[in-house]
Amino acid sequence: MLNDWLAPKAAALESRGLNRRLRARSADEDVIDLAGNDYLGLSRDSRLIEAAAEAVCRWGTGATASRLVTGTTTLHEELESALAAYAGHEAGLVFSSGYLANLGVVTALGGPGTLLVSDEHVHASLIDAGRLARSRVEIVPHNDVEAVTKVLAERNEPQAVVVTESVFSVLSDAAPLAELAATARANDAVLLVDEAHGVGVTGGGRGSVHAAGLAGLEHVIVTMTLSKALAAQGGVVLGPEVLRSHLINRSRPFIYDTALNPAACAAALAALRVLIAEPERPVAIHSAAARLAAVCGVPAATGAVVSVPMPGPRETVRAAELCRDNGVLVGSFRPPSVPDGISRLRLTAHAGLSDADLTRACTVISRVISEVS
Amino acid sequence: MLNDWLAPKAAALESRGLNRRLRARSADEDVIDLAGNDYLGLSRDSRLIEAAAEAVCRWGTGATASRLVTGTTTLHEELESALAAYAGHEAGLVFSSGYLANLGVVTALGGPGTLLVSDEHVHASLIDAGRLARSRVEIVPHNDVEAVTKVLAERNEPQAVVVTESVFSVLSDAAPLAELAATARANDAVLLVDEAHGVGVTGGGRGSVHAAGLAGLEHVIVTMTLSKALAAQGGVVLGPEVLRSHLINRSRPFIYDTALNPAACAAALAALRVLIAEPERPVAIHSAAARLAAVCGVPAATGAVVSVPMPGPRETVRAAELCRDNGVLVGSFRPPSVPDGISRLRLTAHAGLSDADLTRACTVISRVISEVS
Repeated sequence: MLNDWLAPKAAALESRGLNRRLRARSADEDVIDLAGNDYLGLSRDSRLIEAAAEAVCRWGTGATASRLVTGTTTLHEELESALAAYAGHEAGLVFSSGYLANLGVVTALGGPGTLLVSDEHVHASLIDAGRLARSRVEIVPHNDVEAVTKVLAERNEPQAVVVTESVFSVLSDAAPLAELAATARANDAVLLVDEAHGVGVTGGGRGSVHAAGLAGLEHVIVTMTLSKALAAQGGVVLGPEVLRSHLINRSRPFIYDTALNPAACAAALAALRVLIAEPERPVAIHSAAARLAAVCGVPAATGAVVSVPMPGPRETVRAAELCRDNGVLVGSFRPPSVPDGISRLRLTAHAGLSDADLTRACTVISRVISEVS
Repeated sequence: MLNDWLAPKAAALESRGLNRRLRARSADEDVIDLAGNDYLGLSRDSRLIEAAAEAVCRWGTGATASRLVTGTTTLHEELESALAAYAGHEAGLVFSSGYLANLGVVTALGGPGTLLVSDEHVHASLIDAGRLARSRVEIVPHNDVEAVTKVLAERNEPQAVVVTESVFSVLSDAAPLAELAATARANDAVLLVDEAHGVGVTGGGRGSVHAAGLAGLEHVIVTMTLSKALAAQGGVVLGPEVLRSHLINRSRPFIYDTALNPAACAAALAALRVLIAEPERPVAIHSAAARLAAVCGVPAATGAVVSVPMPGPRETVRAAELCRDNGVLVGSFRPPSVPDGISRLRLTAHAGLSDADLTRACTVISRVISEVS
């Protein structure tokens, strides 16, 4: 049954060069990592490791239940308060993944009375959230404030949520947050910004919403992942206290999911403390990104990701393989993971890269790109 | 904006006695826990704690990216192989939460060509998965094999997936798995069984699908959470290798989510090893559940959960509060978390309960129930 059903689909993908396989890394792999999202270089920082190990001893290996049963610890609340304070919001609510945070907030605000206005480049989790929300969803052209204004003004629904990201995942470009917040307010709508690639990177670490002076406004909601710059796992929704209470009562992916494990809570909290103590880390991301962009002949990016268009999916995979053979790990993005259908190398700048590693990475990447293109 | 929108909803919930608040526990709370899902009593087992702490040192605090980028470690693969071997399947794929595992497998199999036939009591994650799958969804009465057969036989879709749980979360009753597997096979359909409350508990620990002799059949898929009996976080989909490859290529909640953190992988793997080494643990769950059921005057349950109907939501909350005042933590389930609208106390039997604690818990609970009812 399953074989007859799925094997032909696998063959079809294979023939288009789009079949994906997992490659398991070992713990002591000796490569320069420009593929992962450990933007601040904290995943193996001793302060995070100690905090996570201590939390496992103190709280146990799992949260034991959903947040509403026995899953909420004082550690979860401490993390939520710290994240909210850092990014400038009244309150925060932590989910067990960034994906679920996005599903959770959008579905809890969605419904027939709510219009969702979603940028065409938003992350898969926000697209799925829109599908699940039982709202009318209007997809607008990328970063098109006029289009947002038009659909907001012409709507019949009493409520509306404008959905975007501060820094987009694949192209690493920025959303016009101030303009979006203004049109949302003028049209009695809420602005929801996913800062998955903003926290720890833009606005000195506090994200693009904070940098734009929008944090804490009553109609602005932020989501963040804890699994990228904060080197842990999970996601958070930030906004007014009334939103937090609403999610606790209405957000199915919050209510019916086991709470984030204590190790991840503690690691994220420790990462936040490092980020506050060492504001030079976000700066290092941007210098590394600028060097990578220059060597690849692409414009400097808003975020940590340098996105390099390639001729096609096979060339992208080949380039990534050649880089790996030369000790440099880079990401390769192919359809359907690219918003415009263009396959790309995705290079991630990290605060933890040494100057020597960055120089070596630049040499390898520029040679590989000219070889493959 | 958000306040005008959400505050009236909060007031409406409050007036019906359905407002939910989080209660944060401390690390050293001195209570008898009959609320959490740490069925095997392993969350604070030194073997799991050591494994998790060692994984954090060895692999770092986060997985650093999605499974398809740098998120897959040999630890993830080891966990997947061990879970598949234990439960009798060809292959396994780990997700960062059980919620996402259910969303991930159902949406990857769903679509206009697939009918989903879903038991009316399945978990919220499976209901959401059905909504997201773009399939026609037929909800059938609870455990009604005839109804399943009828909709399978009358369908126009080439594919169909029958969705159920082995042990249902709130009522703790069992699904007729052998009959469902037989009708699925006869009607060229797949059977998907959520063993969230089966793994570690039923079938000597290997779950109800294994106990029914259905594990490894080509048309049978199992999902499990790693956050209950296995005392960690995450979820897994088990089935044929062709399914695993399909999910790697098509499952959006797999592709676009950061991988499960190393601490949780290691804890789940260590829990599995304890479960294999100590087969008396699942037995202890059932004896504790039988004692709790007897004292509450309800029938013995299939799983670890003893479900005690209460007069209404307020009585349920009051009973849970009285138990807590007497040092016993119990779950209180109110609408919409109960499939039949009946509020309940939810008592979880754990392998880790001492005889003295269980005796004390029985005394407190029986006194509180008669006081409140």
